[in-house]
Amino acid sequence: MTTTVNAFGAQEAGKPLTPVTIERRDVGPHDVKIDILYCGICHSDINFVDGSFGPLPVSPLVPGHEIVGRITEAGSAVTRHRVGDLVGIGCMVNSCRECENCRAGQEQYCLKGHTLVFGSPDPVEPGAHTQGGYSEAIVAPEDFVVRVPENLDPAAAAPLLCAGITVYAPLKRFGTRTGTRVAVVGLGGLGHLGVKMAKAMGAEVTVLSQSESKREAAAALGADHYAVTGDGSAFTELANTFDLVLNTVSAPVSLPDYLGMLRLHGTMVNVGVTTEPMPVDVFTLCQNGRSYVGSLFGGIAETQEMLDFAAEHQVTADIELIGAQDINTAYQRIHASDVRYRFVVDGSTFADLKA
Amino acid sequence: MTTTVNAFGAQEAGKPLTPVTIERRDVGPHDVKIDILYCGICHSDINFVDGSFGPLPVSPLVPGHEIVGRITEAGSAVTRHRVGDLVGIGCMVNSCRECENCRAGQEQYCLKGHTLVFGSPDPVEPGAHTQGGYSEAIVAPEDFVVRVPENLDPAAAAPLLCAGITVYAPLKRFGTRTGTRVAVVGLGGLGHLGVKMAKAMGAEVTVLSQSESKREAAAALGADHYAVTGDGSAFTELANTFDLVLNTVSAPVSLPDYLGMLRLHGTMVNVGVTTEPMPVDVFTLCQNGRSYVGSLFGGIAETQEMLDFAAEHQVTADIELIGAQDINTAYQRIHASDVRYRFVVDGSTFADLKA
Repeated sequence: MTTTVNAFGAQEAGKPLTPVTIERRDVGPHDVKIDILYCGICHSDINFVDGSFGPLPVSPLVPGHEIVGRITEAGSAVTRHRVGDLVGIGCMVNSCRECENCRAGQEQYCLKGHTLVFGSPDPVEPGAHTQGGYSEAIVAPEDFVVRVPENLDPAAAAPLLCAGITVYAPLKRFGTRTGTRVAVVGLGGLGHLGVKMAKAMGAEVTVLSQSESKREAAAALGADHYAVTGDGSAFTELANTFDLVLNTVSAPVSLPDYLGMLRLHGTMVNVGVTTEPMPVDVFTLCQNGRSYVGSLFGGIAETQEMLDFAAEHQVTADIELIGAQDINTAYQRIHASDVRYRFVVDGSTFADLKA
Repeated sequence: MTTTVNAFGAQEAGKPLTPVTIERRDVGPHDVKIDILYCGICHSDINFVDGSFGPLPVSPLVPGHEIVGRITEAGSAVTRHRVGDLVGIGCMVNSCRECENCRAGQEQYCLKGHTLVFGSPDPVEPGAHTQGGYSEAIVAPEDFVVRVPENLDPAAAAPLLCAGITVYAPLKRFGTRTGTRVAVVGLGGLGHLGVKMAKAMGAEVTVLSQSESKREAAAALGADHYAVTGDGSAFTELANTFDLVLNTVSAPVSLPDYLGMLRLHGTMVNVGVTTEPMPVDVFTLCQNGRSYVGSLFGGIAETQEMLDFAAEHQVTADIELIGAQDINTAYQRIHASDVRYRFVVDGSTFADLKA
């Protein structure tokens, strides 16, 4: 027994998304059913449907992994949530729960592979694939659903479920606190939340950007400093300066330039991902005992911690709210970097779609 | 006023070393004079005199930066050491002492550049260059001289001053303790001390080597496991295994292969240095939240800590003791990887040299 819901998805890789209908399973004992209020649009949604990550794992494929909604039904064994709760779902809806990484609360690094919120074979429903948040409702295991504090704007909180945790986790892991010197490279969906989160932790924040164009925007977000990297002079002027360089750019960068800006035992973290290998030179890494680190969103417990932190410090994304019918246009505008800083789809508009 | 001492040095880059004489300055208020008992031969000595690091900074150039000796004279203001003390000097004999790295006890990362024990302009003697440990005696600032515990074999302790601290510092920094899974890549001067130090800290140690040839040697050093990397299968079998990979190889390696062996939040540290940039792929780094780090020997305080640790756990190098006249032959054997694991020059043999 399933429920048919309206959604917006890809029927073929590289083609515009269209209205579709998908089936949501009946609520199992450990599941909750969520009426989707808002769903953010992340760049990786686009990568999954435009063919950059290969053929579609299933057709239609419904993206969306920054979901905020209210629980409308809870399974008989559910203990963490109740009907009416405001909750969120991010990048994953399951993992093996047994490997050492899952046991450490780092389910995003599940050694058997986590279950993405869309496009993954669903261990709960053999034969089916998960489908994401561009839809009216979703059913998911309660353990992968987090509580969204009621004092957060739910639309502006949606991007926290992926972009927020992706920047929060490494900032926290590498000890960001009052006085920590943090550089944020790139000022998009991830970067703008990197600035806000780092500021909320007490850091002195510098935005590093190719050109002058985002100087005012960086200041408006609370950044203390802004440096232009385009002509290369910043790399010399800011050598040995930062405790943490948070690289949110999903394209190759010159690693020696950025690593050279790290002070003693400083860390550069890549949260933007590029498939192109980047050359790293050991001499630059050896000076100051520098580290280059990768980080993939975050675990469930730390996602909850991040949302509680965001509520305490009133950190949410700057968003542009759109209806489901505008998703394709939003994708084009994201390609053109024409968004400050995140599109969020109003979940109530999926009901009006005609598949 | 200076003292002329016998030494063994390079008069021209790329040519065999010859007996030479050099001048040691009179002991200043903050200096100690040391009768050199032993001096290790490190591969970077060779790089400095064979032209790989460029032309000789001064001619003759006397290498040697793993020095153990006894103090024969102490300046009027010296408080840390006394005449008769067994002491050591490693890679550096000075630094600015004022920058944030020096203040943090990480003088090896001095932002104004540390003074190498040989080949550096000497801030204490304007116009002169420092000269190293292939000589009868040395004069150096007491703050860069460490105490060598009397219960260490002084000849076998000499390599601790460079090779020992180079592996100890990152093992310590990244929390090596009982049960930590450490892989040591390469089993030369650095690697064999890496195995011994990691074992002394309580780690479970695996030696990773190209071929089967060093399996018995690794076991003799105390390694728990040995894996052959030549055919690539170890990279799959040992994926997600190690907390720390200590790479002592001074040549490019395939970073994704080694990084892939790190478990959750694991760290690969390069202590071997290569001038050739190595490609790193962000996907491998992002899985498990892995880190790739550089490390350059260590600070003075941690070098003292390392020697005290070595004395407590009776960790010294496996050495082959030679006379000064055999240094050129030793260089050839090092090139041919024909040494287990470190040559140490008997300091008493410099007296017999005829320059």
